[in-house]
Amino acid sequence: MRISIIGVGLLGGSFGMAVRKAGVADRVAGVDLDPVTLERARERGAIDEGFLDLAEGVAAADVVVLATPVRSILEMLPVLTPVLGRETILFDLGSTKEAIVCAAAGLAGITRYVGGHPMAGTEHSGIEHADDGLLRGATFALVPPPEVDDGAVDLLTDLVRRIGAHPVVISAERHDRIVSVTSHLPYLLSVVLALAAESMARGEDRLGAFTASGFRDTTRLAASNVRVMADICLTNRRPLLRAVEEARRLLDDLAAQIEQGNETELVRMLTRAKDGRASVSGERRTD
Amino acid sequence: MRISIIGVGLLGGSFGMAVRKAGVADRVAGVDLDPVTLERARERGAIDEGFLDLAEGVAAADVVVLATPVRSILEMLPVLTPVLGRETILFDLGSTKEAIVCAAAGLAGITRYVGGHPMAGTEHSGIEHADDGLLRGATFALVPPPEVDDGAVDLLTDLVRRIGAHPVVISAERHDRIVSVTSHLPYLLSVVLALAAESMARGEDRLGAFTASGFRDTTRLAASNVRVMADICLTNRRPLLRAVEEARRLLDDLAAQIEQGNETELVRMLTRAKDGRASVSGERRTD
Repeated sequence: MRISIIGVGLLGGSFGMAVRKAGVADRVAGVDLDPVTLERARERGAIDEGFLDLAEGVAAADVVVLATPVRSILEMLPVLTPVLGRETILFDLGSTKEAIVCAAAGLAGITRYVGGHPMAGTEHSGIEHADDGLLRGATFALVPPPEVDDGAVDLLTDLVRRIGAHPVVISAERHDRIVSVTSHLPYLLSVVLALAAESMARGEDRLGAFTASGFRDTTRLAASNVRVMADICLTNRRPLLRAVEEARRLLDDLAAQIEQGNETELVRMLTRAKDGRASVSGERRTD
Repeated sequence: MRISIIGVGLLGGSFGMAVRKAGVADRVAGVDLDPVTLERARERGAIDEGFLDLAEGVAAADVVVLATPVRSILEMLPVLTPVLGRETILFDLGSTKEAIVCAAAGLAGITRYVGGHPMAGTEHSGIEHADDGLLRGATFALVPPPEVDDGAVDLLTDLVRRIGAHPVVISAERHDRIVSVTSHLPYLLSVVLALAAESMARGEDRLGAFTASGFRDTTRLAASNVRVMADICLTNRRPLLRAVEEARRLLDDLAAQIEQGNETELVRMLTRAKDGRASVSGERRTD
């Protein structure tokens, strides 16, 4: 199988390393705007060959994988359509799915498109942080459009399994609603914490000394690539704003219990959070 | 030096291990309500001897360290006063300081009290998770009351240094204001995320599969000991409610930019968070 990856950063690079290591692809081509990135991707074993030209890079590919920020994917779809082979499967790794699936469905030239989203990443970005194990063990959403090509879904399901990830076929709407709570809201609250600390630090030179592992972990996502995250926020607007609304309601509720000194209700909410987190994450309770 | 530690859980146990390992104490006594905990603390090298009786446990101690949840410390102060030696230094490891420093200042029998707070911990609790390295490298707040005993502060500064932590002498008010933003607000937002996910998971069986490292890290603090955290929230009410107010304002601001599709302002805020987090945590920017 010949695979072309457009955008060989953290995710595209890790995907390339994984398919090459698993022996899924005979040849992996990389397309990127930056020749230095392409060279590093080749050196790091993410691709066999790099292309600056989109048409050249996707020529004769069985699967083309879009691994750029979400709005780059949206911009690239109409440019890609005329140069894509008739049998070529188009796949993407974008973090929000409804916008991309809708855009792909609206383009006459794209007949074999399936959306994808591996639930893996770090706050870092770029080919230097790519890792052939990043996707291993991760849930990998496969989002077929309404007019689904079963052959394409089957092929990608198999490919995802072979790189050690867990395929989950899911609708775009359901995917976007879930990740608004498990991924995008955590990012926004992480940003809120970092902004609150940054604001206090301007008048308080001791603040840095009073940050420990709890602060580092809860603000880690705020260190994510801004372009990638802005695209996510702006293409998953409605589910994310509903999640923010729910967060605001919960925060107000917690603040009210603290203000009123309502210990019973406060303890009930904190316990529900602790138990809920354990059951959602499937972790054992430790105390 | 003879040290008595009241409450040999995660923090008291780790403190005992650290002072014994550093050779700071000739003898470490542990006082706890639970004989099994005392036995495990002895086995794990946190204490030399365990006591169920408070008066026996603190007899002849040079330093008594209160290492229980904040409101237990507040309840214990008047009970401890009559049994404390005249020269004994009273120290505590409670996470909020103003309530404890005020309470200690109001008790005639306590003449050599200094508050303490090591910026270290995990979401786990109990002697099984104690670790002689937990406090190493951590900022260790020393909070002298208005009527300060310089000898006591000097002795504790030296002790803190000898176990590898960094003493920072700071007022109770300033300490509580800083940690409301660097520690207590992160906990509350972590609770909010866990509650939002728990609530969605009730009607969405796929949610668990869509949690990755970002969700785990941002909700880790929600797994903290509920009793410890409720005490913190209820004894640091005013600074914490101010921090919540600021968080709400920032979240509303982010939501407004997303709702209006104001990319420029959204990117500005996300960038300020990313850079602010890096400068507050003293971490290098990676991309």
